[in-house]
Amino acid sequence: MKSKIDIKEISETFKKALDNTEHNSLIKEEDTSIIFYDYTFLKKRLEEIRSSFPQNTLNTVAIKANPLVRILKFFREEKFGLEAASLPELYLAEKSGVHPSKIVFDSPAKTEKELEYALKLGVRINADSFSELERIDKLLKKIKSKSQIGIRINPQVGSGKIKITSTADEYSKFGIPIKNFKDELKNSFTEFPWLTGVHLHIGSQGISLRMLLNGIGVVYEFVEETNNFLQSKKVPNRIKNFDIGGGLPVQYKKNDVEISVSEYAKEIKKNFPALFSKKYKLITEFGRWINANAGWTACKVEYVKKQGGINTAVIHAGADLFLRRVYNPNEWHHDISVLDCNGEVKKGRKKRYVIAGPLCFSGDVISTNILLPEIKPGDFVIIHDTGAYTLSMWSSYNSRQMPKVIAYCENGEKFMVIKKRLTLKNILDFWS
Amino acid sequence: MKSKIDIKEISETFKKALDNTEHNSLIKEEDTSIIFYDYTFLKKRLEEIRSSFPQNTLNTVAIKANPLVRILKFFREEKFGLEAASLPELYLAEKSGVHPSKIVFDSPAKTEKELEYALKLGVRINADSFSELERIDKLLKKIKSKSQIGIRINPQVGSGKIKITSTADEYSKFGIPIKNFKDELKNSFTEFPWLTGVHLHIGSQGISLRMLLNGIGVVYEFVEETNNFLQSKKVPNRIKNFDIGGGLPVQYKKNDVEISVSEYAKEIKKNFPALFSKKYKLITEFGRWINANAGWTACKVEYVKKQGGINTAVIHAGADLFLRRVYNPNEWHHDISVLDCNGEVKKGRKKRYVIAGPLCFSGDVISTNILLPEIKPGDFVIIHDTGAYTLSMWSSYNSRQMPKVIAYCENGEKFMVIKKRLTLKNILDFWS
Repeated sequence: MKSKIDIKEISETFKKALDNTEHNSLIKEEDTSIIFYDYTFLKKRLEEIRSSFPQNTLNTVAIKANPLVRILKFFREEKFGLEAASLPELYLAEKSGVHPSKIVFDSPAKTEKELEYALKLGVRINADSFSELERIDKLLKKIKSKSQIGIRINPQVGSGKIKITSTADEYSKFGIPIKNFKDELKNSFTEFPWLTGVHLHIGSQGISLRMLLNGIGVVYEFVEETNNFLQSKKVPNRIKNFDIGGGLPVQYKKNDVEISVSEYAKEIKKNFPALFSKKYKLITEFGRWINANAGWTACKVEYVKKQGGINTAVIHAGADLFLRRVYNPNEWHHDISVLDCNGEVKKGRKKRYVIAGPLCFSGDVISTNILLPEIKPGDFVIIHDTGAYTLSMWSSYNSRQMPKVIAYCENGEKFMVIKKRLTLKNILDFWS
Repeated sequence: MKSKIDIKEISETFKKALDNTEHNSLIKEEDTSIIFYDYTFLKKRLEEIRSSFPQNTLNTVAIKANPLVRILKFFREEKFGLEAASLPELYLAEKSGVHPSKIVFDSPAKTEKELEYALKLGVRINADSFSELERIDKLLKKIKSKSQIGIRINPQVGSGKIKITSTADEYSKFGIPIKNFKDELKNSFTEFPWLTGVHLHIGSQGISLRMLLNGIGVVYEFVEETNNFLQSKKVPNRIKNFDIGGGLPVQYKKNDVEISVSEYAKEIKKNFPALFSKKYKLITEFGRWINANAGWTACKVEYVKKQGGINTAVIHAGADLFLRRVYNPNEWHHDISVLDCNGEVKKGRKKRYVIAGPLCFSGDVISTNILLPEIKPGDFVIIHDTGAYTLSMWSSYNSRQMPKVIAYCENGEKFMVIKKRLTLKNILDFWS
C-alpha cells in the first residue's frame, strides 16, 4: 500500500470539506487549524497488520500515538485491542468498550492502586521491574484476577537514530536489561507462577529492521531457554505470551526508510518460526505505523510578513500541536505544502519562507527555511503525516483552542467531526 | 528580597502540608505529584514591581507564564493587570475580573474576529505588523472602541543566550524590525490617529540588563523622534503608551544572573528619565520574574532501579509538566532536592542518579546524572523554581492527570487547593 497521502488527494478532500454544508458548514471561519484523519487509510493499515500475523495474535494500538476516543472506538470496531501506557490511558481503553483481555497496560511508574485497578479489571499487564513483580505478587494474594502478566525486557541491542525514542540501549529507563539480570529474570518465572509473558519494545522512529529482529531474537532465545529450564526443573509454568511491542518507522520524508508490517512479520516468521506456531501468543502494539501517515493538518495563514529579505507566514498551529517538531527540529520532520483558500494546490515560482506558529515565543517555528509557492493570508499550509504523536502531546502553552478533528472516508465521500474545537469555556474550566 | 525558596523552607512547608487535615487530608495517596505556589513570595515580587515604577504605570502579569485562574484573580486583587497572548488568554483575563483597561492583548496571529472582540471589549492591543494595523483601522471604522493601541517594534539589539526565547535578533517573527522600516513605522502614527503606543519585548531567560536597556533605548529614541516629527508636521497624535514588555531573567541555578526589578527600573529611570515623567504611561508585562521562583513541585518516587551501575529514580512528573527541561535540557535547568516520605530533607552520602519521568518515551528524563542522597520509593523529589512556563505548557502525552496545585502563605500557615488534580473523567472528556 502507499506510504503517504499525497497533496493531490489532500487537496481533493479539502475542497470537499470546504464545500460540505451537510450540518451547516463543516469548516467555519473560527477553524483556523483543522486536523484530518483518513479512515480508509487507517483501515488498510489495520488490515495489513491483521493479515500479517497469526490468527491468534492480539493486535493492539498504542493509545499514546493518538488517544481520540472516537478513533479508539473505531479500532475496537475493527477488532483491535489497545495498549495503555498510563492509568488514564487504561481508563480510555475501558471506556472505549474494549474487552479487558484485549487491553495491555504498560507504564514504568505504575502505583499500587493502579496495579490493583488493572488486576481487578483483568487487563494484561507488563511489569517494568522486579519491584513491580513483587507488588503484583502481594496484590494477587488478596485479589482474584484474570490478568495475563508479562515482564518487560531490555534486549540491549543498541539505540536507533533518534535517542529520545530509542529504548534498547545498554541503559534504558525501561524494562530489565537482560545482560545484567538474565538469571534473576529466569528465576522470576519459577518464583511467580502467574508470570507468563515477556514484552519488549526497542523504540520507534529511527529503528532498523535488523535491530528490531535482533531485539526479538535476544528475547526469543531467553524465552526458549527459560521454558526448557522450567521444564527441566519440573516447574509447570511456561512463557506463552510474547509481546513484540511496536516500533516500526514510517516515512515522513519521501526517502525515509519505511518498514511495512507485512515485511516485518515475514522476517519474524522466517527467523523465529516458533513465534508463528501455537506455542506462543503474539501481541503487537503498533502506534506510529498505524496513525502517522493517516493524518494531516490544514493551518490557515493569518499574516505574511516580508522583512529584511525574509518572508514569514504566520499560521495557526505551532509548538502546541507540533511539539516534537518545534522543540527538536533536527530529529522530527513534516513535509509542508500550500493550498489556496479554495483548497487548490498552489503553483508557480517558489520563494523561501519561515513558517511560524502563533505562540508567544520566538522558537515557535515549524520551518526556518523552506521553498514554497507564494503564500498569501487566507491560504492553508498543509502539514503532512500528523496522525501520530502530535495531537496526543498537545501542549497548553498560550491556552490555545485545540483544533477540530475531522475523519473522512474515500477521499472525502463522507466526513465526521470526531472532536470539536475546544471552546473558550473549556479552557477556562481547564485552568480553574 | 531572596531569589529562591530554599529546601529548608520547602521541607517545613511540605511537612505542614502532609500533616494538614483541615479538609480531610490535603495530600492524598493519589497525589503523586503536587505543585506548590508561595503567595507570600508572589506578593513580595508584586510589591517590588509596584514600588519600582511610577504610580501611573500599568503593571501586568504575562498569563502565559502561569494561567491558573485562581492566581490570575490573586493578581487582580493585588491591582495588577494581565497580559494575554491569545484569544483564550484574553478570555481568562476577562473572566478573572480584570478591567479591560488593565488587559494587554499581544499575539502575532490575531484574526479579524479576535481583533473585533478585543476592540469591543476595550482592552489594550499591541499590533504585531503593518497588516494588523490596517485590519484594526478597517474595524475601527465600524466599531466604537476604548482600546489603546500600540505597535510592537523589534529593536534588533541582538539575541540572548537562549535562542528560542530571544525575540530581538536582526530577524524575529515578532514585531516590526526598526532598521528595515523606520520611516514606515513613523508614518503609521501620522496615518492612524488612534495609534498611540509602542511595545517591545526582547526575550526572557538569558537576556542581559545591558541588552534590555539597549532595546528600550532604541525604541525610546524612535518615540521621541516620532513625537517631534508629529509636532513639526502639526499632526495632533502623540505616542504616550510605552510598553516595555517583560524579559527579566531569574535564578534557576544559584549563580545564574538575576536582575531585580528595582535595579532594572532604576537603570531605566537613570538612562531615560522622560519615561518616568508624566509624558509617558509605562506598561510592564513581567511573567517569569514574578512566577518562576514562587513555585516548586513535589514528585513521589515510585520505583528505584539499580542496573548496570546506574540508579534510576522513577518519579511522577516528566515531559508533561517539565516540557522545556526534558526536550531542551541544555537550555533549561531546575535544581533538584530530595525529601523523605515525611518531608524531612534527606542527608547522607550522595549517589549518582538518573531522575526519570513516568512517560512512555526514553527521553522522558529530568536529569541524566545528578548527585543526591540515597533515594527510596515513597520519597519526594523536589523540583525547584517551577512557577513559570511549566504547568502553563502542560503536555497531554500519555494523558496523565495534571497534578493538584496548592497555594500557601507564610511557610505553610495557610493552604488553599487552587486547582484540583484532573480526574479520569476529565481526561475522557478531553479526548471525546
